[in-house]
Amino acid sequence: MNLALLTIGDEICLGQIVNTNAAWIADQCSRQGWRVLAHSAVGDAIQMIIAECERLSGLADVVIITGGLGPTHDDCTKTALTEWTGDVLVEHKPTLEHLQYVMRQRGRELNARTAAQAMQPSRSTPLQNDKGTAPGIWLEIERYGKPVVIIALPGVPQEMRHLMLDRVLPRLRVYDSQNTSRLAHGWVMLYTTLLTTGIVESALADLVGDVQTLLEGQELAFLPSAAGVKLRITVTAPTRDEAQTLLERLTAKLRSIVEPYIYGTNDDTLEAIVGQRLRERGKTLAVAESCTGGLLGARLTDVAGSSAYFLGGVQCYSNEAKTRFVGVQPETLAQHGAVSEQTAGELASGIRKRFDADYGIAITGIAGPDGGTPDKPVGTVWIGLADAHSTHAEHFVFTNDRTFNRERAVVMALVRLWQHLQVTT
Amino acid sequence: MNLALLTIGDEICLGQIVNTNAAWIADQCSRQGWRVLAHSAVGDAIQMIIAECERLSGLADVVIITGGLGPTHDDCTKTALTEWTGDVLVEHKPTLEHLQYVMRQRGRELNARTAAQAMQPSRSTPLQNDKGTAPGIWLEIERYGKPVVIIALPGVPQEMRHLMLDRVLPRLRVYDSQNTSRLAHGWVMLYTTLLTTGIVESALADLVGDVQTLLEGQELAFLPSAAGVKLRITVTAPTRDEAQTLLERLTAKLRSIVEPYIYGTNDDTLEAIVGQRLRERGKTLAVAESCTGGLLGARLTDVAGSSAYFLGGVQCYSNEAKTRFVGVQPETLAQHGAVSEQTAGELASGIRKRFDADYGIAITGIAGPDGGTPDKPVGTVWIGLADAHSTHAEHFVFTNDRTFNRERAVVMALVRLWQHLQVTT
Repeated sequence: MNLALLTIGDEICLGQIVNTNAAWIADQCSRQGWRVLAHSAVGDAIQMIIAECERLSGLADVVIITGGLGPTHDDCTKTALTEWTGDVLVEHKPTLEHLQYVMRQRGRELNARTAAQAMQPSRSTPLQNDKGTAPGIWLEIERYGKPVVIIALPGVPQEMRHLMLDRVLPRLRVYDSQNTSRLAHGWVMLYTTLLTTGIVESALADLVGDVQTLLEGQELAFLPSAAGVKLRITVTAPTRDEAQTLLERLTAKLRSIVEPYIYGTNDDTLEAIVGQRLRERGKTLAVAESCTGGLLGARLTDVAGSSAYFLGGVQCYSNEAKTRFVGVQPETLAQHGAVSEQTAGELASGIRKRFDADYGIAITGIAGPDGGTPDKPVGTVWIGLADAHSTHAEHFVFTNDRTFNRERAVVMALVRLWQHLQVTT
Repeated sequence: MNLALLTIGDEICLGQIVNTNAAWIADQCSRQGWRVLAHSAVGDAIQMIIAECERLSGLADVVIITGGLGPTHDDCTKTALTEWTGDVLVEHKPTLEHLQYVMRQRGRELNARTAAQAMQPSRSTPLQNDKGTAPGIWLEIERYGKPVVIIALPGVPQEMRHLMLDRVLPRLRVYDSQNTSRLAHGWVMLYTTLLTTGIVESALADLVGDVQTLLEGQELAFLPSAAGVKLRITVTAPTRDEAQTLLERLTAKLRSIVEPYIYGTNDDTLEAIVGQRLRERGKTLAVAESCTGGLLGARLTDVAGSSAYFLGGVQCYSNEAKTRFVGVQPETLAQHGAVSEQTAGELASGIRKRFDADYGIAITGIAGPDGGTPDKPVGTVWIGLADAHSTHAEHFVFTNDRTFNRERAVVMALVRLWQHLQVTT
């Protein structure tokens, strides 16, 4: 089954907000083995919405629209859909009753604006929204001699996700299975991603060699990311079982070649993988963060259950904090400076001792945009790693971008800890 | 001038990554007073790219393409462009020389794959890329009896931003001024956003009253965000000067009504505004973070120059860290628990004292998904705020989503500090 996504909203077109909805919906649909062919976004303008509905209906079996379903004057998706399909709005009694119930729960009167949400295209099936007032819309039409499902959902992410997971995906799975012969593509596409680190893209490409032969004509993409290169294998096959079998076989082939560099697959994060290793071994971790100000700890504690191995740390932004709360020698700071191998080492071993942790990690650097010197330009970062046996600090020079430097420092700290855990037991 | 954006890449279509490039480019163009009419994204498929180039050229004066310019086999934007315009690729000598220079700098040989980046559409102007190997493409064509500029940029955000800021925007400004009469729209659209906090959307709408009259027919959008509701005023006028004058007048009108709730405008962040207040008053801040693990410190130190007021903090994830490094009484933890008014208060006042700071902020909560009890469900957060005179802790119950709870806790801590700084001198 092929899909196209249409996002409605001036705030998207103007670039005021990032279109996270489209990525989330596409990811959910891709996981079903369906192929998302195109994303589109237009402003709150009825004629452009109609033109896009028409175009995307020619392209795909299913068009999922988000945004423009709210109660305010700039919401015009429902108007566009009725005009496009030559339909009319009629009162949908179950929706009205649901809105009355919701307002009672909130201790408020049902006003005219909210009640208008019960007006739905006569040929559509409203999808009850338990997280807001605008119901979703499910509309089956014929276009270009083939069936098309048009789905419209509110743009509020929480409401959209609820409607996708609880109303749309279950219906679409049934629809897909009942209409296979009538839909544009019966072929199933599946993919998996191997996450590598510690090897640059060109070296990885050399290692992989002839992609066509190795992957038997299926697709391989090299996707650079902060932690390293992601390898995405995409296979297409007539049935889900064939695609699954092929994907597993090709993944095993590729994996055998790049194994030493793989830290995870698909949605795995470095912080979750590192956390799992620490937990398996019953080891603990503490951090001392200067230029990252807490970003490493924030990443580590993004992982549910991280209290099993993350004890905490010190955001030692000032020099005084480095000496008083982590135990860096004042002479070290005076002689080598806050951004130095020596300070990074003392921060790592100091935080490890103070927290009685198995591992200590320290980050100290010049994030920028100011503070650089000819010796230590903006982007200079020292990352320290200490365990009971030794302390090691490594030097990096990133860019002149503050946000990038801080993010990259955190990623490299996690990479080094992962590598350290790979070679130690 | 009207624009359309086209993003190329399977990883976008499949939803593996969020399309942050489109939002960033749209924002940059909107700030110039140009109108971005549509965003589109398709996979690495030549025929779909060509179809989109054709369609978007009909819609807009400028089409900005990102992605698919790299050296690997799945990069096909250049092929699509040459095929679409009936052009051929020719070697662009300055690009080749630049690539040779870059490779020498990196101490590497110029291989065939990288050298192929010097092959450019014969009718285009290559845009030198100082952050990578793929040059951007600037191509002026005629379509549907009007001029269209086609711009293609690499998808790597750092390279794309460099090319947009240093090559594309300056050229586009000149192009716009030289072609005003030939371009689809001469009208200029400008907008500004007032950032409010401490008032809910419906109360804000009541306060604003009749939008049509107040804004004289221009547009006002209510955009909910974590910190509060953003009010975006958009005006359209025949000239830039008229738009600017109108925007300033309407903004002043709206501002006079909602003034007490405004913490900033446009791209202002709470952390930058709070930082500015602290800096103006010569005050300092320290933080104690339990469930956020460093996220508040990370946000505060996102701001360049934050070392002037942010001294640091303790990521007191474990109970032991709370007592040993922040000075919470063990009896307090035993009697009230780590997530309590008493602990939040002792963390805030304790961290303030240990760091000799003017203000201490503490966050302690149950981020989830586990760890909730009937008394203290997942999403329970206590935020403590201490100054030299008093300590106060406030109770929140957010959602069952770990990431959301942590983000919201950090935002509310910043909101409370901002409000505190508003009422104190």
